[in-house]
Amino acid sequence: MALTLPKGFKWGGFRCGLKNKRNDLGILVSETPANAAGVFTKNVVHAACVGFSRAAIQSGKLQAIVVNSGNANCCTGLQGERDTARMAQLAGEKLGVDAGLVAVASTGVIGQTLNMAKVEAGIVGAGDALGDDPQPFKEAILTTDLVEKEASVTLPGGAVIYGVAKGSGMISPNMATMLGFVVTDADTSDFNLQKLLERAAAPSFNSMTVDSDTSTNDMLIVMANGASGVKVSEEDFYKGLAEVCLSLAKQMARDGEGATKLIAVTVTGSEDPSKIARSIANSPLFKTAMFGCDPNWGRIMMAAGKSEVPFSLDHAVLKVHGGGEEHTLFEDGAPAPFDPKRVSLALKDDEVGIELVLEKDSSNTATIYTCDLGYGYVRINAEYHT
Amino acid sequence: MALTLPKGFKWGGFRCGLKNKRNDLGILVSETPANAAGVFTKNVVHAACVGFSRAAIQSGKLQAIVVNSGNANCCTGLQGERDTARMAQLAGEKLGVDAGLVAVASTGVIGQTLNMAKVEAGIVGAGDALGDDPQPFKEAILTTDLVEKEASVTLPGGAVIYGVAKGSGMISPNMATMLGFVVTDADTSDFNLQKLLERAAAPSFNSMTVDSDTSTNDMLIVMANGASGVKVSEEDFYKGLAEVCLSLAKQMARDGEGATKLIAVTVTGSEDPSKIARSIANSPLFKTAMFGCDPNWGRIMMAAGKSEVPFSLDHAVLKVHGGGEEHTLFEDGAPAPFDPKRVSLALKDDEVGIELVLEKDSSNTATIYTCDLGYGYVRINAEYHT
Repeated sequence: MALTLPKGFKWGGFRCGLKNKRNDLGILVSETPANAAGVFTKNVVHAACVGFSRAAIQSGKLQAIVVNSGNANCCTGLQGERDTARMAQLAGEKLGVDAGLVAVASTGVIGQTLNMAKVEAGIVGAGDALGDDPQPFKEAILTTDLVEKEASVTLPGGAVIYGVAKGSGMISPNMATMLGFVVTDADTSDFNLQKLLERAAAPSFNSMTVDSDTSTNDMLIVMANGASGVKVSEEDFYKGLAEVCLSLAKQMARDGEGATKLIAVTVTGSEDPSKIARSIANSPLFKTAMFGCDPNWGRIMMAAGKSEVPFSLDHAVLKVHGGGEEHTLFEDGAPAPFDPKRVSLALKDDEVGIELVLEKDSSNTATIYTCDLGYGYVRINAEYHT
Repeated sequence: MALTLPKGFKWGGFRCGLKNKRNDLGILVSETPANAAGVFTKNVVHAACVGFSRAAIQSGKLQAIVVNSGNANCCTGLQGERDTARMAQLAGEKLGVDAGLVAVASTGVIGQTLNMAKVEAGIVGAGDALGDDPQPFKEAILTTDLVEKEASVTLPGGAVIYGVAKGSGMISPNMATMLGFVVTDADTSDFNLQKLLERAAAPSFNSMTVDSDTSTNDMLIVMANGASGVKVSEEDFYKGLAEVCLSLAKQMARDGEGATKLIAVTVTGSEDPSKIARSIANSPLFKTAMFGCDPNWGRIMMAAGKSEVPFSLDHAVLKVHGGGEEHTLFEDGAPAPFDPKRVSLALKDDEVGIELVLEKDSSNTATIYTCDLGYGYVRINAEYHT
């Protein structure tokens, strides 16, 4: 079922040949210059488009985004920087938009120079195909993703926040995300959009990891064109933005490369529950056990302990949630009796919760979203390049 | 071919039923109390044997070590602590050694109480089987290891340093290792054995990672009984100790779960080349590319960049070594031309080197040893428990 979309945005996608089978060049344009904010990868090694788009967004305004998949245009030296600037220029010309209001995003293999002949044809093709349906654009930003990711929230008064995202590997965003584009027709002229975006990214994209590998091309951009003419309260807008971001982040974790399930790891207590939850979520031994539906909970304790955050197990409780059931595996400093077959069955669910409470009365809690690690991850990534 | 062994040590192994097919209870004993030193896991969650053996070694003396595999006796509460103390007591009685001079090590599944009836039978069996051949002991400490690991160095004057180790998963030692036992008949009475052991562990066991997961039971112990009557210089002794430790560490990385090759990642330059090398060595995307013999070097740059150590690629050089060849993939800020098929062939070698030079004139260099990540790792760890 089609989601509700905000007014005043057009979407285009085109297959220019950077990838094999799907659209690989996308354009998103607002009818008018929009308020814009963005967060970007913190990877020391990052693509030309990251620096380019960060600079473009400094003015607080954007009107269009041009994206290619199939090639990250990263580690490509000065040629890569020239190609990124050229993409913005060509898209601006095609759309009749100031090139300074165009952000650029690229995703795919690192270390190869862009085939600009294909990219130029793609920009023309996507520009010619602009329309109200985001589907061709959603397809154009995918790499190894199996499914497209989108989310929509209608705000009080009728304005809409809608977002799309891609990403299924090299995902451990650091104050950023893989590619995520959120658009809204709400009037945000009274808000600090950048601060709201950073706040919404923290519990969503920045609380999600597939493989602990932080992309060189992460980028999350929001564009607000005010086309609905509707003002909303800052808190209502934030809630909607956070809901769209969390939904997209969970869709990305669920579609992690080779993943068979979405796993939410929640840790309560200690001075840094988020660091402990991330340590568990990134542990290959934990993730392979989840793939095998193996109630080998010792690996959860190992991964919590290697986080270097001090804690005691004396009053710890470990539970798993899945298949509509809750099972206690560890309680008050000792293993709890449980039926391994029943827990294994619960772990077969496609959405599993791991709950580690280190201090029962603590309100300091954090949830990290991840997926399991199976044969599919190895297959995809051992055979990705060619 | 049998390696040279130091004088005055006896080894025993027995199959008591904690594992399916191999010896699972081992005893190592010196004819006389030996100078001893040890380094242990820094995992906040650690097994009872870690605290017990750390305390035993405080005196600087040990005479025996009793080890079981198949069960880590970790997260087992007070019962686990009692069982560890009981193992030392039983071994001491069987060997006629002060129980305060017995260290205990356990390795295997976390979270299950030891079957002490089996362990007691194992201690008797291994004690009855003591002899000069380390083989039954070497077998008794293995878990998912495919091969036994041992190394020997003969020092000037004829004293010998000999070590055995186990470990192939849950391996990212933090100032410690998986199980490693090094014995020597050199006279070390003039040395600070603890300092020498820590110094030797840094470039060997602590520079090795299989899956970034730090065991709860890591333990490296050295025992020096002086039985050769030979004094050596501290530097000669350190060199021998470091050589044995490095050999064992490389054997462990090569035998990483599901591994098809040993990979040495060397980074030169920046303020923390070791952190960058470890970030590369732990990257699932890098490791799966190595499994696939895929010259997808962008993942090396990505993993270097996510380390959070600042550096520039402007003068960086990236080379791979394998199959007797050296290939340059990146040079002076831009991709270098190379033949992907030829590099892929080089990566099929069972020993591969990755060399990233960030500053050509820097003497700040570090090497981390690791292995690739293939289907075997998933198979072993998704199906390990039962």
